[in-house]
Amino acid sequence: MKLYGYWRSTTSYRVRIALNLKGLDYDQTSVDLVAGEQQDADYATLNPGQGVPTLVLDDGTVLTQSLAIIDYLDATYPDPAFLPTDAVARAKVLAAAHTIAMDIHPVNNLKVVGRLKSEHGASTDDSINWMHHWMTDGFHAYQGLLPEGPIFSFSDTPTLADICLVAQLYNAHRWGVDMTPFQRLLQIEEAAMKLPAFEAARPENQPDAT
Amino acid sequence: MKLYGYWRSTTSYRVRIALNLKGLDYDQTSVDLVAGEQQDADYATLNPGQGVPTLVLDDGTVLTQSLAIIDYLDATYPDPAFLPTDAVARAKVLAAAHTIAMDIHPVNNLKVVGRLKSEHGASTDDSINWMHHWMTDGFHAYQGLLPEGPIFSFSDTPTLADICLVAQLYNAHRWGVDMTPFQRLLQIEEAAMKLPAFEAARPENQPDAT
Repeated sequence: MKLYGYWRSTTSYRVRIALNLKGLDYDQTSVDLVAGEQQDADYATLNPGQGVPTLVLDDGTVLTQSLAIIDYLDATYPDPAFLPTDAVARAKVLAAAHTIAMDIHPVNNLKVVGRLKSEHGASTDDSINWMHHWMTDGFHAYQGLLPEGPIFSFSDTPTLADICLVAQLYNAHRWGVDMTPFQRLLQIEEAAMKLPAFEAARPENQPDAT
Repeated sequence: MKLYGYWRSTTSYRVRIALNLKGLDYDQTSVDLVAGEQQDADYATLNPGQGVPTLVLDDGTVLTQSLAIIDYLDATYPDPAFLPTDAVARAKVLAAAHTIAMDIHPVNNLKVVGRLKSEHGASTDDSINWMHHWMTDGFHAYQGLLPEGPIFSFSDTPTLADICLVAQLYNAHRWGVDMTPFQRLLQIEEAAMKLPAFEAARPENQPDAT
């Protein structure tokens, strides 16, 4: 399998964690988002959304969108499972994952923040405030969905929610979000980072990290 | 089941379509997003994300996030299925659904566009341009993921992708997006609107429509 991604992209980070948790080997090809490589014609043919990640399977099948890729991995390599089997429990994990993947990440995406600057005159400080706002809001919502007790968000093994959370927390630290109200999230991050699958997936540990 | 939603919310619209396609009865409670009712303390306890939709099951279980709710419905009431069983085919439908649900909708959300105006001085025209931009971009990506041939996006019966698409197209029409490049999407919408499940779910047909 070949993963097209970018070290600092939190959606690429999600897929790296998932591949590592499943114990799968993969090659990485860097798509430099800051240099705009996602808009290159060849890459845009592979991924019409002109984003990362893209996973190309050994038979040439092209998969896009991080959570769709992770769904494929979970269906094809069921152990360890990223979602509970019970329909309600599964929906609760998905809701937390989507709180990160839909309510926070897209609004803070490089291209969205870029447009905020280019079209709406946002300064660097304005754009950092914008990102802080959506992360703080979303982390409160996420924390409000968590049960008491387990090591990770919903259980003693990581689920899709933890995969999304840990990747987003990288971004929160990068941009200096005040994490004081989110001690539970930091505990989950600490537990995750003890697992080699998460540690190896960290942005800083990727070949294209600068 | 009780659905907390809002007639113009496209995420509520998705869940209404899903409930109707499954042939399920449900009561609706309106949460007026424009009046800010999603921030009322009682509602925020039910849905820490302070958004719609929320589905409360007959046993009191509370589900949030539209695609997590639809996942629950699909798992619990499997006929008609919203996703293929093959892992690759399923990931392709999910990728298209997420192109709408992650790349378009969150960035054009009422609260995001509201902040663009309140914090970044965007005029009404600016905010309409913002919405047009992300819809146009995302519809190109969505169209690029579609196979040739079927009536709906991926098959001759609607999938999760169509549910997300039709709800987003309501928004596109509402804000006057130029749909000339997206004839395939309009064909899908036309086919969907012939089905009573989609027609009954339309924003205009809801009790809280004004």
